[in-house]
Amino acid sequence: MSDRSRALVEKFLIRPGKTFRLKDLDPRDTSTVGDEETTKIETDALARDIDALQDRLYAEGRRALLVILQGTDTAGKDGTIRGVFNATGPIGVSVTAFRRPSEDELAHDYLRRAHLACPRRGTIGIFNRSHYEDVLVAKVRSLAPEKDIERRYDQINAFEKMLTENGTTILKFMLHISKDEQKERLQERLDNPNKHWKFNPGDLEDRKSWGDFQKAYEAMLNNCSTEWAPWYVVPADRKWVRNAIVARVVKATLEEMDPQYPKPSWKPGDFKVD
Amino acid sequence: MSDRSRALVEKFLIRPGKTFRLKDLDPRDTSTVGDEETTKIETDALARDIDALQDRLYAEGRRALLVILQGTDTAGKDGTIRGVFNATGPIGVSVTAFRRPSEDELAHDYLRRAHLACPRRGTIGIFNRSHYEDVLVAKVRSLAPEKDIERRYDQINAFEKMLTENGTTILKFMLHISKDEQKERLQERLDNPNKHWKFNPGDLEDRKSWGDFQKAYEAMLNNCSTEWAPWYVVPADRKWVRNAIVARVVKATLEEMDPQYPKPSWKPGDFKVD
Repeated sequence: MSDRSRALVEKFLIRPGKTFRLKDLDPRDTSTVGDEETTKIETDALARDIDALQDRLYAEGRRALLVILQGTDTAGKDGTIRGVFNATGPIGVSVTAFRRPSEDELAHDYLRRAHLACPRRGTIGIFNRSHYEDVLVAKVRSLAPEKDIERRYDQINAFEKMLTENGTTILKFMLHISKDEQKERLQERLDNPNKHWKFNPGDLEDRKSWGDFQKAYEAMLNNCSTEWAPWYVVPADRKWVRNAIVARVVKATLEEMDPQYPKPSWKPGDFKVD
Repeated sequence: MSDRSRALVEKFLIRPGKTFRLKDLDPRDTSTVGDEETTKIETDALARDIDALQDRLYAEGRRALLVILQGTDTAGKDGTIRGVFNATGPIGVSVTAFRRPSEDELAHDYLRRAHLACPRRGTIGIFNRSHYEDVLVAKVRSLAPEKDIERRYDQINAFEKMLTENGTTILKFMLHISKDEQKERLQERLDNPNKHWKFNPGDLEDRKSWGDFQKAYEAMLNNCSTEWAPWYVVPADRKWVRNAIVARVVKATLEEMDPQYPKPSWKPGDFKVD
């Protein structure tokens, strides 16, 4: 890992066992990257590197990468996927958006639909929202008994540990925006007809519970940043900073995984093409 | 549709009701495109146009596009996906590779796994191989009684008609390479260590049945090119020609679908972001 990537990991990784508070991280922080123009060029280069590493991951076919994106409405989950993974071909990348659970999904435990969506070996899976909604909106809106929700942190940790022990590396990014930035972005969705489809009146209801959501995020970060599946909190008021940080961590992670072209079980000389 | 796209559609579309023979189409034909360098630049531009159209399809959220790719081993199914869809972000594109069916899949009818993999509204689904394997390899290797296989053409046509009537536009491309070209590509997989992982000794067995496979492809084309889900046969010995043709047809199809940003059910003035 490059020194620069290591510095980013140090800065934005939530250390297991330490108490983290969201107010200690400035969503407008730009101190870890260079100027906007240079940073955007660097991010494009990182995205191409990720594509090349993904090709090797696919060829190897033995391990997977799961990237989980969480963040309040308008935090930029879709935008991050575009900024970091648009250069990665669709062959080895799957994106799953976790929407309001269906009646069928609710008839199972909450982890099942996440499990079904996990990436197959050789691929990158991206979760746009995830099983963490079950300790976020579920907690704020009391969608399950409090006792049940509190037990989910350990259940999620055990689930993710199992995944990593079976070949799936997990990266979790919380995209952290300020309340002011959300106001601007929601207003933009109301003002720009091409963004009307992104506006959901329910988002305004959630905005009224901003403080409760921030608390739920903190509980999630403090309970579920583990050695095997750490959380990163990314300052996300500036889209170019957000994309730069996520791209750098994803690339560093794939480099550490260091996927290899598999050795064949046959000898090339054994075959003749007629 | 531009005149050029219309000419391509005319040339490579298999007309329902007419008998088509593969030997009438030259896999090395370059007459429908310009020189290699210009064509590649044009294809990159088409790929970006497809990305922009896909964004509108996603916003609209009412219809889907299903792109089916078939072709003998080494015909370039993966390469086509890379060449045509790499500029399209992974958010609205899913790729499904149809491998040897699992025991569970075999315990159902052959169309079920294709149905499960169909794209959700607002997205593009790409099938790398498909339910057509059940009238190709299944026919050549007699994996089912002949009577059962012969009935599948009508079953597939009815299945695809239902999909189109419910909002999914279907494009089917057979990537047509010559036997000589396949020899070169298989040899390249044996000679280049970075391509060893792509080589499957079973491909040599299938190559021995080249003639039977060509007949099975012809039967598929002549029985399943319908008004609602036509087959295109693409000369694929030249990768840049193949990508150019597929990209042009995909773009023209999305343009004809003409997806629109949806009109909201609410009035922007009804809301205030506090």
